[in-house]
Amino acid sequence: MHLDVANLVRTTEAAERDFIVRALHAVGVDDRDAQLTSEILTAADLRGIESHGIARLRWFYVDRIRMGTVNPRPNYRVVRETPSSILLDADNGLGHPVSHLAMERTIAKAATSGIAFGAVRNSNHYGIAGYYAMMALPHDMIGISSTDSIHFAVPTFGRDRMQGTNPFAVAIPAGEEDPFVLDFATTTVTYGKLEVYERRGKKLQPGWAVDGEGKPTDDPGARHWGALLPLGGFGTEHGGHKGYGLGALSEILCAVLSGAPFGTDLSVIEGPEHPGGVTGHFFGAIRIDVLRDLTEFKRDVDAALRAYKTSTPIAGYERVKVAGEVEYENAAAYKVHGIPHVERVWEDLDKLADEIGIAPLSRLSA
Amino acid sequence: MHLDVANLVRTTEAAERDFIVRALHAVGVDDRDAQLTSEILTAADLRGIESHGIARLRWFYVDRIRMGTVNPRPNYRVVRETPSSILLDADNGLGHPVSHLAMERTIAKAATSGIAFGAVRNSNHYGIAGYYAMMALPHDMIGISSTDSIHFAVPTFGRDRMQGTNPFAVAIPAGEEDPFVLDFATTTVTYGKLEVYERRGKKLQPGWAVDGEGKPTDDPGARHWGALLPLGGFGTEHGGHKGYGLGALSEILCAVLSGAPFGTDLSVIEGPEHPGGVTGHFFGAIRIDVLRDLTEFKRDVDAALRAYKTSTPIAGYERVKVAGEVEYENAAAYKVHGIPHVERVWEDLDKLADEIGIAPLSRLSA
Repeated sequence: MHLDVANLVRTTEAAERDFIVRALHAVGVDDRDAQLTSEILTAADLRGIESHGIARLRWFYVDRIRMGTVNPRPNYRVVRETPSSILLDADNGLGHPVSHLAMERTIAKAATSGIAFGAVRNSNHYGIAGYYAMMALPHDMIGISSTDSIHFAVPTFGRDRMQGTNPFAVAIPAGEEDPFVLDFATTTVTYGKLEVYERRGKKLQPGWAVDGEGKPTDDPGARHWGALLPLGGFGTEHGGHKGYGLGALSEILCAVLSGAPFGTDLSVIEGPEHPGGVTGHFFGAIRIDVLRDLTEFKRDVDAALRAYKTSTPIAGYERVKVAGEVEYENAAAYKVHGIPHVERVWEDLDKLADEIGIAPLSRLSA
Repeated sequence: MHLDVANLVRTTEAAERDFIVRALHAVGVDDRDAQLTSEILTAADLRGIESHGIARLRWFYVDRIRMGTVNPRPNYRVVRETPSSILLDADNGLGHPVSHLAMERTIAKAATSGIAFGAVRNSNHYGIAGYYAMMALPHDMIGISSTDSIHFAVPTFGRDRMQGTNPFAVAIPAGEEDPFVLDFATTTVTYGKLEVYERRGKKLQPGWAVDGEGKPTDDPGARHWGALLPLGGFGTEHGGHKGYGLGALSEILCAVLSGAPFGTDLSVIEGPEHPGGVTGHFFGAIRIDVLRDLTEFKRDVDAALRAYKTSTPIAGYERVKVAGEVEYENAAAYKVHGIPHVERVWEDLDKLADEIGIAPLSRLSA
């Protein structure tokens, strides 16, 4: 758990889910889609990925439905389907429910075919990539998920915003250990991190952002006139071309493979007014037991994760951690002690509740 | 093409392939395996990835066969097989021929099932990851390849060598453009780069390596008493946990999924004396036309790649490049003008030829 959350006002998982459902109902989303979206947004907050949870409820979802840029009652369409693949058109609906459906179908296909993949086009922001990858875990499969996004990042040695934060997530089942869940933006940091630094007047770290000429900058205002750098930072010396390549890979898998907009056709406009239905997603599921005995595999994943966890840490650190571990710790703590939100989020949600005529999100008394 | 290769002595592709075949024959490798290994090693040199080509012929392959740590006449065994997956045991043979076979079988399975994957255990160093991913291209498939390696890198906040340079490669077919070929180590730089810097007495860049206590260092000698850092560098501030997570993902897919050694069971010893048969590989192939019309897909990949290539470069750079582009340029030039090798490689190959009683690699006259 982060140290600075100790004094924040909290809510419960159930209250947060209920609030999101009520807010989405209020703008015309049907119950199934509202439930799924609330499940996935709350999962982000529980895992401590507060940038992708309820904090975005207004800006990314409710306001966009109210402005007519996102369709609250989409009719999903299967564009192409085989025993090991599915391509869905999201009809410009919310990204979460259609992505849940796409991953569900991908998993069902992998159960028969051993491995399967899916893609979605004409969709919108789908929240945390990790959620969909983790859907494979109870099925003893490896889950994969990626999405493109509004363009925030420059390619190596470029100055135009040519790709998004384009995350990849891979979830791998373990035995007694928590699963391995890798979920990362292919930019060094997210756009939200620059927002936080700007609000606090803090200088950016090297490798995070460039100015309008594409030159490295420590000015957090770069998010307005500059761009994010790919993982590995500026140029090629620290591997920036690798992060750029991974982001481009996400763009090709999510947009080009699905038939969604890409390149200069993908918006660089933030906020509710950016065009809807421009986002594409990619999903995959792999059955483990077609290659390896499941019990042996889980035993060995446990051993591999424990080898990392029991390896020698550097001075000042208690232990080496593995991908997903911090998020499982957060979820365990937040389920018991409630989910913390910063004051700005509470204010925004109270205002939203008032605007759309629903009861506010209830606070846990300290 | 790199500028500093202009004055190097060159050989032809045909001569290099022939020399590798003769060297491998001399130590008992059969003709099929020798031909495949020479094809893949020469492909690395043609693409300008000189660290993974003939420069390693002695150290990684010939000497290890001569010392008895690698089996020159392996009998590959299919451990498990389904219509969409294959697991091969390499019988401690060279990594290249068995990986070629595994990817060939994976592609054949994907042709029927739409998507397929494979893994190899009890193998050895397989050369460039990109070669196997690129095998999917003529079949209009997306190709994927990864391998683990001797452990050179620390996990984030750790000081033990817990994973290798563990590369991932993904190749995606285009239409008129060269294919998109992403092939990258999950460490910031490779071990070979530290060797070069040590030989030249140059200081390392931040984010490349740590000393024996796991603290960042600019001393190129760190390769002896320290370790490589994952892509993103030290700590989490520049995304080092993402590179560490990608490296761990490769370790799980290549070693744990295949049943190969991992964690502290994977050697940290360099050179011919490290134990054979400890390496694992992972392969995947995805048919494009099960999701998208092939002609449309290739047209759109072309458009996506051109969008990057025609985007605005930063001052001092002519153009933004895409993954694989430099390597295609190298290959085009080297096929015409010959493959350059540094003097140290020529000396080593001449000495090797003398030791094993074969004619030396022929030099192109300038």
